[in-house]
Amino acid sequence: MISSTVNKQVKYVNALVKKARTRREEDLFVAEGLRMCQEIPKDRIRTLFVSESFRETPECRSLIRGVRQVETVTDQVFQAMSDTRTPQGILALVRQYHYTLDQVAKTGGDGGTPAHLMILETLQDPGNLGTILRAGEGAGVTGILMDATTADIYSPKVIRSTMGSVLRVPFVCVEDLSAAMDQIRARGIRIYAAHMDGGNAYDREDYRGDVAFLIGNEGSGLSEAALARADRRIHIPMAGQVESLNAAVAASVLMFEAARQRRP
Amino acid sequence: MISSTVNKQVKYVNALVKKARTRREEDLFVAEGLRMCQEIPKDRIRTLFVSESFRETPECRSLIRGVRQVETVTDQVFQAMSDTRTPQGILALVRQYHYTLDQVAKTGGDGGTPAHLMILETLQDPGNLGTILRAGEGAGVTGILMDATTADIYSPKVIRSTMGSVLRVPFVCVEDLSAAMDQIRARGIRIYAAHMDGGNAYDREDYRGDVAFLIGNEGSGLSEAALARADRRIHIPMAGQVESLNAAVAASVLMFEAARQRRP
Repeated sequence: MISSTVNKQVKYVNALVKKARTRREEDLFVAEGLRMCQEIPKDRIRTLFVSESFRETPECRSLIRGVRQVETVTDQVFQAMSDTRTPQGILALVRQYHYTLDQVAKTGGDGGTPAHLMILETLQDPGNLGTILRAGEGAGVTGILMDATTADIYSPKVIRSTMGSVLRVPFVCVEDLSAAMDQIRARGIRIYAAHMDGGNAYDREDYRGDVAFLIGNEGSGLSEAALARADRRIHIPMAGQVESLNAAVAASVLMFEAARQRRP
Repeated sequence: MISSTVNKQVKYVNALVKKARTRREEDLFVAEGLRMCQEIPKDRIRTLFVSESFRETPECRSLIRGVRQVETVTDQVFQAMSDTRTPQGILALVRQYHYTLDQVAKTGGDGGTPAHLMILETLQDPGNLGTILRAGEGAGVTGILMDATTADIYSPKVIRSTMGSVLRVPFVCVEDLSAAMDQIRARGIRIYAAHMDGGNAYDREDYRGDVAFLIGNEGSGLSEAALARADRRIHIPMAGQVESLNAAVAASVLMFEAARQRRP
């Protein structure tokens, strides 16, 4: 049992929790909590850390079955590893996903459901990103495309707020968003840019074919380069004196409108 | 100019920022930032605090016109008063609103637009409450009804995340939510409870008349007492393995569906 916070493995977890670069270099991310850990495919877990108290529970026994490396740590050490104030005593180091743009941008022509993509440009708030993943899975989103200046999808805050959706929705992070958007359009996916003005009201377009919604930064919106690559602009009509919506709310309104249109 | 953080007025602001009880007793709340302060009706501002640096700007000169009490504080003192890390140097003590249930629950029969109410039961996250107010104004919500166990609408985090909507959307906080819901129904407003299961899909109902949406606690959902007072349950159909949406996202999907139906 690990009983010291200066233990090498504890320091390793701390670095993975705090640093995007360490996560990238080690090709891992940290997922916390019972519910989350239960949903991770076993073969994706590199190490499971459990607290001394949690180790005694029936949930723990069924959870660690089939996991190769399980480490028990004292409750105090677990608290030092955890990103939350009241940790449940269970935390996993999970191998990162490596979807390709082709996997993320599958179209109806590939034999499945029509594409329903979210394209995120420089989305900065981890809570917004996590909420879009969670709501996106609920709305039937088929993939998420982000640029490298969007919040790190593997940060503990994003992972937590996805409530497990990060394990199921295909996503890809690209250096050159314009080039990726060109590829998406070349596949016949129609890109709608959410914009304060211009274009039709969002509910006047038909989203039953292959579509993607482009969402911009919380403060500055979309870049000209991204806007230029969208097929159309759409806006969410606003009452009162509201100029814009929270990015996750705007994305959700669009995603669930597409889901609504696609229901038989 | 106030140059000490132990000044009586500075301590007073600190208490108003931190304590719901002080806000209630003093019948005030704290609003920060240039944009927010520009939107507050002048006769509602009790005191305006400006930092030494901000005092020199043209924005400040036009803002303080017509405000009775303006206090200048050193930049350091302002930092100690502020709830944000990088304050703009402007902060207002604002008189609280006292809408009645009758004012909040106006119906189309009162000569205006049909009611589009949000009823919030024990909503705990200040960010969710603020987001619902902001998105709600954008969706044309006519009023917000909360119970006393919902997050304090006057907490700085809620005020900030409303982006000014708190100044424009009528709201009321009640001790007895069941009694208030009875009154709302007696006015002919149809109450739809957002629930994971049961009832129609949310987009299969007609929201062009007087309606209210009932949203429950983030973790435990709606109480039996509240559910019993709803006219109907509705659910947002979910793809994937998502069981529920973030409360502000769910509320927004419903509010914008009502807005969509009401557009000519």
